[in-house]
Amino acid sequence: MRIPYGGDYNPEQWPEEVWKQDHRLFDAARIDTVTVGVFTWARTQPSADEYDFTTLDRIVERVAAEGRRICLATGTGALPPWLAKAHPEVNRTDFEGRRHRYGQRHNACPSSPVFRQLSTEMARQVARRYAGNPAIIAWHVGNEYGGACYCDLCAAAFRDWLGARYSTLERLNAAWNTTFWSHTFTGWDEIEPPSALTEHWRGPDHTAFQGITLDYLRFMSDAMLANFRDEKAAIREADPTTPVTTNFMGMYRPIDYHRWAAHLDFASWDNYPPDDTSQARMAFTHDLMRGLKDGQPFWLMEQTPSYTASRDVNPLKRPGLMRLWSWQAVAHGADAVLFFQLRASRGACEKYHGAVVGHAGRSDTRVFREVAELGAELEKLGGVTLGARTPAKVAVLFDWDSWWALEISDGPSRLVRYQQVVLAYHRALWDAGADIDVVPVDADLSRYDVVFAPALHMVKGDLAERLEEVAGRGGSVVTTFLSGRVDEDDNAFLTDVPGPLGPLMGIRVDEWDARGPEFVNPVRLDNGPVVDARLLFELVIPQGADVLGTYEADFYTGTPAVTRNAFGQGYGWYVAAGLDEVGVGWVVRQVLDRHNLGGPYPDVPDLETALRVTRDGTRLLFVLNHRSDPVEVIARAGGVDLLTGTHVHIGQPTRLDARGVMVLRQP
Amino acid sequence: MRIPYGGDYNPEQWPEEVWKQDHRLFDAARIDTVTVGVFTWARTQPSADEYDFTTLDRIVERVAAEGRRICLATGTGALPPWLAKAHPEVNRTDFEGRRHRYGQRHNACPSSPVFRQLSTEMARQVARRYAGNPAIIAWHVGNEYGGACYCDLCAAAFRDWLGARYSTLERLNAAWNTTFWSHTFTGWDEIEPPSALTEHWRGPDHTAFQGITLDYLRFMSDAMLANFRDEKAAIREADPTTPVTTNFMGMYRPIDYHRWAAHLDFASWDNYPPDDTSQARMAFTHDLMRGLKDGQPFWLMEQTPSYTASRDVNPLKRPGLMRLWSWQAVAHGADAVLFFQLRASRGACEKYHGAVVGHAGRSDTRVFREVAELGAELEKLGGVTLGARTPAKVAVLFDWDSWWALEISDGPSRLVRYQQVVLAYHRALWDAGADIDVVPVDADLSRYDVVFAPALHMVKGDLAERLEEVAGRGGSVVTTFLSGRVDEDDNAFLTDVPGPLGPLMGIRVDEWDARGPEFVNPVRLDNGPVVDARLLFELVIPQGADVLGTYEADFYTGTPAVTRNAFGQGYGWYVAAGLDEVGVGWVVRQVLDRHNLGGPYPDVPDLETALRVTRDGTRLLFVLNHRSDPVEVIARAGGVDLLTGTHVHIGQPTRLDARGVMVLRQP
Amino acid sequence: MRIPYGGDYNPEQWPEEVWKQDHRLFDAARIDTVTVGVFTWARTQPSADEYDFTTLDRIVERVAAEGRRICLATGTGALPPWLAKAHPEVNRTDFEGRRHRYGQRHNACPSSPVFRQLSTEMARQVARRYAGNPAIIAWHVGNEYGGACYCDLCAAAFRDWLGARYSTLERLNAAWNTTFWSHTFTGWDEIEPPSALTEHWRGPDHTAFQGITLDYLRFMSDAMLANFRDEKAAIREADPTTPVTTNFMGMYRPIDYHRWAAHLDFASWDNYPPDDTSQARMAFTHDLMRGLKDGQPFWLMEQTPSYTASRDVNPLKRPGLMRLWSWQAVAHGADAVLFFQLRASRGACEKYHGAVVGHAGRSDTRVFREVAELGAELEKLGGVTLGARTPAKVAVLFDWDSWWALEISDGPSRLVRYQQVVLAYHRALWDAGADIDVVPVDADLSRYDVVFAPALHMVKGDLAERLEEVAGRGGSVVTTFLSGRVDEDDNAFLTDVPGPLGPLMGIRVDEWDARGPEFVNPVRLDNGPVVDARLLFELVIPQGADVLGTYEADFYTGTPAVTRNAFGQGYGWYVAAGLDEVGVGWVVRQVLDRHNLGGPYPDVPDLETALRVTRDGTRLLFVLNHRSDPVEVIARAGGVDLLTGTHVHIGQPTRLDARGVMVLRQP
Repeated sequence: MRIPYGGDYNPEQWPEEVWKQDHRLFDAARIDTVTVGVFTWARTQPSADEYDFTTLDRIVERVAAEGRRICLATGTGALPPWLAKAHPEVNRTDFEGRRHRYGQRHNACPSSPVFRQLSTEMARQVARRYAGNPAIIAWHVGNEYGGACYCDLCAAAFRDWLGARYSTLERLNAAWNTTFWSHTFTGWDEIEPPSALTEHWRGPDHTAFQGITLDYLRFMSDAMLANFRDEKAAIREADPTTPVTTNFMGMYRPIDYHRWAAHLDFASWDNYPPDDTSQARMAFTHDLMRGLKDGQPFWLMEQTPSYTASRDVNPLKRPGLMRLWSWQAVAHGADAVLFFQLRASRGACEKYHGAVVGHAGRSDTRVFREVAELGAELEKLGGVTLGARTPAKVAVLFDWDSWWALEISDGPSRLVRYQQVVLAYHRALWDAGADIDVVPVDADLSRYDVVFAPALHMVKGDLAERLEEVAGRGGSVVTTFLSGRVDEDDNAFLTDVPGPLGPLMGIRVDEWDARGPEFVNPVRLDNGPVVDARLLFELVIPQGADVLGTYEADFYTGTPAVTRNAFGQGYGWYVAAGLDEVGVGWVVRQVLDRHNLGGPYPDVPDLETALRVTRDGTRLLFVLNHRSDPVEVIARAGGVDLLTGTHVHIGQPTRLDARGVMVLRQP
Repeated sequence: MRIPYGGDYNPEQWPEEVWKQDHRLFDAARIDTVTVGVFTWARTQPSADEYDFTTLDRIVERVAAEGRRICLATGTGALPPWLAKAHPEVNRTDFEGRRHRYGQRHNACPSSPVFRQLSTEMARQVARRYAGNPAIIAWHVGNEYGGACYCDLCAAAFRDWLGARYSTLERLNAAWNTTFWSHTFTGWDEIEPPSALTEHWRGPDHTAFQGITLDYLRFMSDAMLANFRDEKAAIREADPTTPVTTNFMGMYRPIDYHRWAAHLDFASWDNYPPDDTSQARMAFTHDLMRGLKDGQPFWLMEQTPSYTASRDVNPLKRPGLMRLWSWQAVAHGADAVLFFQLRASRGACEKYHGAVVGHAGRSDTRVFREVAELGAELEKLGGVTLGARTPAKVAVLFDWDSWWALEISDGPSRLVRYQQVVLAYHRALWDAGADIDVVPVDADLSRYDVVFAPALHMVKGDLAERLEEVAGRGGSVVTTFLSGRVDEDDNAFLTDVPGPLGPLMGIRVDEWDARGPEFVNPVRLDNGPVVDARLLFELVIPQGADVLGTYEADFYTGTPAVTRNAFGQGYGWYVAAGLDEVGVGWVVRQVLDRHNLGGPYPDVPDLETALRVTRDGTRLLFVLNHRSDPVEVIARAGGVDLLTGTHVHIGQPTRLDARGVMVLRQP
Repeated sequence: MRIPYGGDYNPEQWPEEVWKQDHRLFDAARIDTVTVGVFTWARTQPSADEYDFTTLDRIVERVAAEGRRICLATGTGALPPWLAKAHPEVNRTDFEGRRHRYGQRHNACPSSPVFRQLSTEMARQVARRYAGNPAIIAWHVGNEYGGACYCDLCAAAFRDWLGARYSTLERLNAAWNTTFWSHTFTGWDEIEPPSALTEHWRGPDHTAFQGITLDYLRFMSDAMLANFRDEKAAIREADPTTPVTTNFMGMYRPIDYHRWAAHLDFASWDNYPPDDTSQARMAFTHDLMRGLKDGQPFWLMEQTPSYTASRDVNPLKRPGLMRLWSWQAVAHGADAVLFFQLRASRGACEKYHGAVVGHAGRSDTRVFREVAELGAELEKLGGVTLGARTPAKVAVLFDWDSWWALEISDGPSRLVRYQQVVLAYHRALWDAGADIDVVPVDADLSRYDVVFAPALHMVKGDLAERLEEVAGRGGSVVTTFLSGRVDEDDNAFLTDVPGPLGPLMGIRVDEWDARGPEFVNPVRLDNGPVVDARLLFELVIPQGADVLGTYEADFYTGTPAVTRNAFGQGYGWYVAAGLDEVGVGWVVRQVLDRHNLGGPYPDVPDLETALRVTRDGTRLLFVLNHRSDPVEVIARAGGVDLLTGTHVHIGQPTRLDARGVMVLRQP
C-alpha cells in the first residue's frame, strides 16, 4: 500500500490512441490512481431510455489492466442537455428569480423529482455495473456540491423542511420573530425562499429576516445532502463496503460540511488556495477537513500541478511548491494526493487549467518532471502514513451557523468577516507551531486543553456548559467580540452580552463601536506591547475578570479590551476588539505557554511542523520550509528523515532547502 | 405641555410581563410619548375577512393608563403575508422588471386597487376604533414612503396621470421631444414606465428620455401621496381634528416632499445622518423639513439613541452627541424628540439597531443614562419652545425637479451632484451663523433679503421674475453653474444660458468644460484669495455683470468664473465653476456682509447658533458646541440659559463644554 | 468636387422657421453635406398601414434647393413605439434573459421576421421615393449596428446558422469540445444562446464554453449584417449605383467589421475618442477603417464639434483640436468630414451633446467659428485628396476572432486585453512615423515588408504559411505572448505553443506565468535598455531562435523574453512578455530600421506625419502637431503647404503652431 497518487482523468475526451500515451506518461510519473467519470452523464445516458457504458467500460478496463486504482464517479455533476430540455424544471432558478436554461455544470435543482430520480438511477446503474471491480477503491458522488436554487419546487421543499423543524406556524413565527415588520405567517404556502425578489436587497448577505435566510441556507445544504445520500444509497445496493465520498471545497460557505460529514465514509477536498502565501490557510483547511470525521484521514482529491484557469490572474506554482504543498496535505492528514487534471482539455473553460500532461503531450516539461519526482518520492515512502492521526490538544471551533449569522447580520459591521477572525487566531497558532484540530461546536471537547472559539456569534445547545467544563478542569477557553450574541434561531439572548458565555468570561459588554478600517484604537497589553485594534470595539464591564489589555483612545480609553477570567482550575479569555497580528499573537502565546503547547520552532517564521501518529504509535514529524530560501536551525526535534534517510539530532544544526520537506520518524 | 419625548414602541413583539418593565423604564427616562402600531397589519387583520384589535387595544389602554401620549400608526407600512399571497399584484415590480414576492416592508404597489382598498380600510378601522382617545395626539400614516414600482398597474396609472397632465398625445410628444430617436407615441398604451427594460441603462439615472423619467418620478411621488391621502381621508371620517402626519426622510430623492407638504397637518422626519460630523447637513435638513409647511414646527419622529444597524459600519454616538443633536433639532424647529426605538427587537434586521432599552433590559447602561438625563432636561424646559418660529432673512431654494433633472442628465457631468452643490453653499451659510429657511421654488420670496439658488437646473413658472423682484428691491440672489438650463419639461431653453436667469445675472454662458476631480482650475477672487475650482467650468461672457473672479488656467485663463450684476437696487451673483470651500465661503460672506446677516460667532468653527421666536415674541437663542472640546468665547449674545439658569452677559467670557448646549432667553 | 463637410441634421425636430436659420448658418460655415432621416421611422411610418413622407419630402427638397448634398438614411435605427407594442417580439431580449419593452434605440431583435420585413420595406419605400434625386450622394442604412439579442427567435436562428456551419451535431460537438462537462448535444433544439441564464457567469466574458460564445458572437454579427443586407438590397431595387454605407464605430467589439466590409460600398465611422490624448488611437482606428475595404478611402461620418454627452465627464475639445482631428482623419484616408450634430436637440439624452449650432442659434460662439474656419479651409483645398491612397509597407493584423477568444478565455489572465496589446505595438509604430495598414488576417500580405501580429490568439486557415512567406522573402514578422494558441473553434493546438507559428518563431513555450499589474519582471534587451514587463510572462525554450531579451527576475531569470528567428531571408520575432512602452518601442524600431520604414520625424513626440498618394500620383504629406505648443524642426520632407501656400524646404527650419497642420504636396 502507498499513498494514492494521480487525479482526474477524462480519456472520453480523446481518441483511444491518446490513452496509450497517457498510461506511458502515468507510469513515468508513478501515477497509480485515477478519478474517472466525473462528467460523463451525457455519454452514459444519451437519452431518457438509454444507458451506454461502452466508453466507460473501455476506460475502466484499460485503467485496471494498467494496474491503476480507480476512484469512480457517478457522473452526475452536470446535466446532459437532453434532460434540461425535456424537463426545464431540473435547471436551477437563481437568487434573482431567473429560471436558467441549459449550461455550465452543478446546474441541477436539488428538489426536482426528475433530477433526483434520474441522478439516483444513474448512480445505481454505475454501481451495479462496476461494483466488485477490484481496481475501484472509492466511489465519488456528484462533484463539488454547491450553489443554490430558488424555484417553486425548492420553495415547496423548504416548507416541508420547515414543517419538520417547527411543526407549527406559531413556533416558526416565534423563531423568525415575525411580529417585526408585519411578517406573521398564517399559512405555510405564504413562505417564500429568501431571495432578491423577497427578503433580500444588495445580494445574499442583506436580508430583512436573518432567521428565514439562515433556515434557507440550512435547508439548501440539506437538500443537496439528500441528493448525495440518494446516490450513496443506490451505490450501497450493489456495493456494501467500498467507501463513498464527494469532493468538498474547504471553507465553502454555502454548504455546512458538518451536517454532511456523518454521511461520507471519508472526507476529501479540492485545494485551490487563493495565492502563493496561503500556507497557514491551507493548514487550517486541512485541519478543518480532518475534523469533519473526528480526525480520520482525508483525501486531497484535487490540486493543480501548475496553474488554475478560473481566476482573473492565474500565476504558476513556483518550482518546488507543488511538492511542498502535497507534503503539507499529508502532514495534516491526507491519505491521497491527487491532481486536477492529468491531461489538459482541448477546449472550453478549463483548457488553460494546469495539467500533468499538456496539449503537446510532452514529458520534458518542468511540471511533468516535478510530478514524476514527487511520484517517486511517494512511492519510496510507501504506506507508513496511511491512517495516522494528529494528536492535537488545541481545538478551534468552526461553525457554519455562526459564519452565516455573522455575515448576514445587519449591524454592527459588514467589515467583520468570520473567516478573517478565525484565520487570525489560527495564524497565530500556526506560527507558534501548535498541532490543532478544527472541530464543530458539538464535538467532544474533553480531549482538549485549549479551545479557541473566535467570533462564535451563535451559541447552540449545551456548548456554553461544555466550554465551562474545559476551563473548569484547568483548560483555557478563548473567545472574541461578537460571540455569544444569538441563539439557534438568530434571536438575541435576552441577557447581557456575551449571553451564555458570560459566566465563563466574567464580563458584560455594555455597547460596541464599529469603525472603518482606517480607524485604529491602540490596545495596551499587560506587560506586553501596544497593538492596533480595528473594525469592532466592544465596551466591556468586568464582572470578575482580570483586565489584560485596555483601549488607549476615544472616550473609552482605559476600559478593557482583553480580559481573563479565572474559572474553576482554568480561564476564560475574552478579546473585545479586532486586534492586529501582534495582538492576537500575544494572546495566543500567553494561552499556549500556560499549557506548553507550542511547536519546536515557534520563532522561525514559515517553518511549519506537524505531527502524525501511526496506528502502531510511530510519531512522524513533518517539517516544512515554506520559505523561498533555505533555513538552518538547531534541531529541537530529532529522528530519521524518511525521504532521505538522514538522521537529525536534537541540538545539532539542521538545514532545510528552500521549500524543503523532512518526514522525521521520531525515536 | 412639554416637548413630546419617547419614540417607536413595539410591545406586540413581547409578552406582557415585559410591558411592565418597559413602563418603569420609561418613567425613569421621563418618556411621555410613544409611537405604536407602525407594523401591525398582520396582527390587526389576520385574514381578508377578519380584524383583530385585541393586542393593540391592550397596548393603547396600557400606554394611556400610564399617562403617556400616543402617536398612533395606521400600520400599513408593510403588507401581511396572506395579502401578498392572495393578491400577487400588491407586491411591487422593481426597476429591473421583476415582480417581487412577499418580503421586506414598504413593499406595496401604490397603484394596486386591492392594496389601496385594504390599506384605506385598515386606516378607517384603526381611526374608528381609537378616535377620541385623549392620549392620541397624532396619527401616523404608513411609514417612510418611498421606493418605486414599475408594474402594469403602475403603467396604466402613469398613463392616466399623463393624460391629466398633457391632455393630448401631441402635447406629450412635444414635452418629451419624442421626435428624437423615433419616439413619437401614437397611442397612450404605447407608453411604458422608464426602467431597465425600456429607456434606462446603467441604472435609474441613465435614461434615453429625461422627460419620461422625470414624469415617472413625479407620478410615483404622487401615487404614494394618493395612498397617504386615502388613509388620511379615512381617518378624517372618524376624527376631524387630531393632526395627521407621516415620517419623512429628510433629503430623500424619490419623493418630492414639496408636492406632499400641503396634505400633512405637520411635518415629521427621521434623522439618520451619515456620520458623526453631519452637524451642518442636519441643520440644513431640519430647515428643509421646517420649510415644508412654511416654517411651522415639525417633529423629530426618529433618531437612534446609539447606533444604526443598516450601514456597512455602524459606529455608536459618542457620549453627549445624542443630547446635542436632539437640542439641535429643537433649535431648528422640532416640537418633538423621539427615538427609534424604545426596546430592541430580538430578531431580524434591526436587532442590532440601537434602542433606549437593550436586550438585557438594563437601566444602568450609558445609553439609557443619557436618554434619562435628556428626558429630565426636556421636562425641566417645559413647553416654552412649542410653536416657536425661525425668523430667517436668508432663503435657500431646494427643488426636487432640479435635483432629478440634474442627476438624470446625460452631460455635462455625472460627478456634479445636486446635494453637494446645495450643501456647499449651505455649509458656508451655516459657518457664518445665518438663520436660513430652505424653501421650495414657489415659496413667497418677499420676506427674504438674500436668496441662494444653487444648481437651479430647472426654472419653472414665474420664478425668474420673483428672483428679479428680490434683487430689484435691494436683495441679493446667488446662483451657480448648471442653473437656468431647462424648462419644466426638461427641454433646454432656446436662449443663451442661463435662460430666464440671464437678465438678472447679466451674463451669457458660451460653453462649458467638465473634468474629473483630479483637475483643478484656480480661480482668482477679486481682492480675495485664489481658490480651487473643480468638476465644471462654464465659460462666461459678461453682458453687463462685473467680474469678481477669473480662471487662472487653461485656454480660458482670465475669463470670468464669478460675476455680480447690479440689478435694480440689488445684485445677481453667478458662480460659474465648482469652487472649493474657501471660494464658496468668500462668495457667501460677501453677500451676507452686505445685508449684515451673519450670526454672533461666525469665526468660531462648529459653534452653532439658531434663533427661535415664541408666540409671545420671546427670542430663544440656541447655542450648540459641536466640537469635542470646550469652547470659550466673548459673548456676543446674552440672556438666561434655560437649562441651567446661568446668565450670559454680552462682552463677557462664556464657556460651553464639549458638545455643550445653551438655550438663551434673550432679554 | 470637395470633401463633403457637414453632418447629422434633424430638422424634423424643429418648426420650419428654424430651418431657414439653419441654412443661413450652414452657408456661413461652408457646410455642403447633411445626413438626414436617421431616426425618422415613427414619422415616415406612423402606423402599420401608413407611410407619410410629408416632412422628409420638405426636408430633402429644402436641402437640395439650398445646393447641399445629402446622405439619406433609411431611418431604421430605432423602432417606432406602435411597432414595439403591436409586436413585442421585435424588442430585444438581453443577456440577462429579459425581454425588453419599448425604449431607447438600436432596439430591434435582428431575427424578428416582423422587424426584418418592416425595416426592409421602409428602406424600399425611402429608396423608391428619393432614388434619382441628384443631391443624394450616399445611402445610410440603419445606425451604429450593435448590441445583441438572446430571444427564442435568435436561438432558432442561431441553430440554423450552426446547421449551416457544422452540418452535423457530431461536428458541432467536436468543435465545442462538448465531452467536457457532459455537454454532448443530441438534438439541435437543446442548444441555447450563451447568456447569463446558460453558460455565463460574471457577465459576457465569463463563459463555460468559449466555442459556443464565440459562435454566438459570430452569429449575432452576421444576423445584423443580414439586416443591413436586406435594406441594401431593397435600396438597390430602386437605385443601382449610389453607394450604400452604414456608420461603424471603430474598434467596436460586438461586430466583426471584417465580416461586413465586402457588403458596404464604402466604409464610414463615428469617431468619439475616449480623451484628449487619443491621437495615436484615432490614427490606428482610421487605418483599421481604411483597411476594411483594402485601403479605399472612408467617411468620417460623425465627430462632435465640442463635447459628448454620454460620458460621466464630458470635457470640451480645446481650441484647434476639432480642426486638427478633422485633418488627421483626412490624412488617414477620410474623404468626408461630418459632425454629429448640426443643431442641438432640445430634449432627451443628447441635448447636451455638442453641436455646430447650439440652443440659442448663435453664430458668434467659439465652436461655430472654428467649424466655419475649417469649412473655409476645406473649401479652399478642394478635391485634391479625394480617392488618394496610403502607400504602407507595414501591416498590423487585427482580428475580431482573436479579440473575442482572448477576452472570453478562462486563463491565463483577464488583465491582458487585446486592444491594449495591439495598441501598444501600434503606438510604437506611430511614434516612429511609419505608414501602416491595419488589415484582416486573410488580407494579401504580399505587399508588406513588415507584419505585426500582436496577441494573435487564434490562427486560422493558411495564415501561418502566409506569414512564413513574408519572412521567407526577407520580411519581418512580429508576434507576442498568447499567440498561436487556438484554432478556429477555439480549441488548443495539440502541439507546442505557439502552434502553427512555431516554425517561424523558432521557439516553444513551456509554461506561462500571469501576475497582477503590481508585479514587474525586468527584461534586459540585447545591447538595449532594461525595461519592465508585466501581466504575462511566457517561459520560452528556443528551438533555433536567437535570444534578444532575457528576464531578470524570478526562477526563470536569464531565460528568453524576446527572440528573433532567422527564417528564409527574413525574421520571425517573438515577444514573450508584456513589455512596457520603452521595450515595445525598442522591438519596433529594431524591425523598422532594418527595412528603413520610419517617418521623417521619429524623434519628435506627437508630431505625426501621414502620406496619401492621389490618383495622379501626387504625394501629399500631412504633418500634424498634436502638441499644445508650437514645434520647430529641421525639415526632412519638403513641399508646398496646400493650406497656406508656404514652401517647406528640406534641411531648413520649419515651424508648426500648437495643434497646427500642414498638407505638403511633395515635389
